[in-house]
Amino acid sequence: MPHVCNRARRLILDGLDPVERDGHLAMEPLPSGADAADHALLGIDRHGRPIFAALHGHPAMSPNATPASRGIVDIVPAEEVAIYGAARSLIHWHARHGFCSVCGAPTRAVKAGWSRHCDACGADHFPRTDPVVIMLAEHRGRVLVGRQHSWAQGRYSALAGFVEPGETIEEAVARELFEEAGVRVRDVRYLMSQPWPFPSSLMIACIAQADDDALTLDETEIEAAFWVDADGVRAALADEDGAPFQAPPPMAVAWHLLDRWLAGVAPSPASA
Amino acid sequence: MPHVCNRARRLILDGLDPVERDGHLAMEPLPSGADAADHALLGIDRHGRPIFAALHGHPAMSPNATPASRGIVDIVPAEEVAIYGAARSLIHWHARHGFCSVCGAPTRAVKAGWSRHCDACGADHFPRTDPVVIMLAEHRGRVLVGRQHSWAQGRYSALAGFVEPGETIEEAVARELFEEAGVRVRDVRYLMSQPWPFPSSLMIACIAQADDDALTLDETEIEAAFWVDADGVRAALADEDGAPFQAPPPMAVAWHLLDRWLAGVAPSPASA
Repeated sequence: MPHVCNRARRLILDGLDPVERDGHLAMEPLPSGADAADHALLGIDRHGRPIFAALHGHPAMSPNATPASRGIVDIVPAEEVAIYGAARSLIHWHARHGFCSVCGAPTRAVKAGWSRHCDACGADHFPRTDPVVIMLAEHRGRVLVGRQHSWAQGRYSALAGFVEPGETIEEAVARELFEEAGVRVRDVRYLMSQPWPFPSSLMIACIAQADDDALTLDETEIEAAFWVDADGVRAALADEDGAPFQAPPPMAVAWHLLDRWLAGVAPSPASA
Repeated sequence: MPHVCNRARRLILDGLDPVERDGHLAMEPLPSGADAADHALLGIDRHGRPIFAALHGHPAMSPNATPASRGIVDIVPAEEVAIYGAARSLIHWHARHGFCSVCGAPTRAVKAGWSRHCDACGADHFPRTDPVVIMLAEHRGRVLVGRQHSWAQGRYSALAGFVEPGETIEEAVARELFEEAGVRVRDVRYLMSQPWPFPSSLMIACIAQADDDALTLDETEIEAAFWVDADGVRAALADEDGAPFQAPPPMAVAWHLLDRWLAGVAPSPASA
């Protein structure tokens, strides 16, 4: 197997969690003799040095977000957040793709860790990124927030769901709002996107106009949902006592979606 | 195994290609005794009848678009285009996921064909949808079009590439334009999306502003590329003799991307 150059560096991880040093992701020199087949190339740093992750995952590793993995976004520069996200998604994907889904034979990492190949049947397998829509329905100056059964008490957020084969982003937004809350929408507008590497989603944040505020909840998915006005959203984002709900954390795209909606409907107290 | 109700209908396919009858997708009654485990539920028609697809795929079936599969978009209603796209993506996915990527054991279709389960290790596997960015870089009234080596002579289109783990839509647009054409962009703007079930992409169409028109092509990916002005795009979309390139077909999101750009930069001759 080819060896990798000795200027290369390797991301230090604690399981799937990041390790931080002085405001950056912790790195170490890639050991001489490291096997390229056990590593994924994550990118090139500003000094031209390649950055690798060891593909040391285990299929049973939880892909769920942890305080350390969520918190890194506020600590390291944006390009390092992307490096960490890619590492986390790739390690988890490799750990769960040791075998070929076409024929059941073992696969091996190729293309600097961005693919796996099956020598038995010749199939190539690629890491997946799952598009997810996350959206606010808007009706007469209020937006819809809901909560899942498993969330901490008081936490509400934008509704969300996977984009299914055969549909557009806009159709996925309309389908999910109708399936989960019984709300019919039009005029779906894209606002922003965010990778969510737990394990490998692409969050696509949208706002849509609801024709009616009647709710019919799918109670297997959604425990509760309600329409909240700009004052309520402002109080929740500011984490005020007496806010009508507890907002998602500022690193979540749902926080920004609520913030962007608020900026669009009402001047903030600071700018008024 | 559970049987499905006898009002149900089944999509008639020719391999992975659609079959059309009187402006609609051809359907047949689901045979009595059909095994739900061999079928995927695609949706419910306007009469409340479930529509299924037989999971009759083979791993070697080509996922590539054919004249019949591309053309169906102009023949049947939009909701049937979505049904066909879902059927095509699901059949191809099931055919290539008969084995568990975690442990190599056989898997079986569950959840009405929207998942596969491994009884050996307990893993659940879900159909994938791959987000792809497709984009125009714009510079002083011109946009960048390029061609791949395999395309028909004269055909040019918007550049495109898969969104990678760890990046936003906007970062993917900037990375792909830089990697494939050496063009640096800012102000990435989302325009529209389209499912592309060959086998299972979600095309995310954007426009971005280039700072410079110098090109450095990645010739493994792009055979040629050039900047074209509004007159050239108009001639190409109208399929005029003497147009500077042959545009993608009107069913492709790239056609609409060029058309939307044109509508934004210059009044059309008809509306002027």
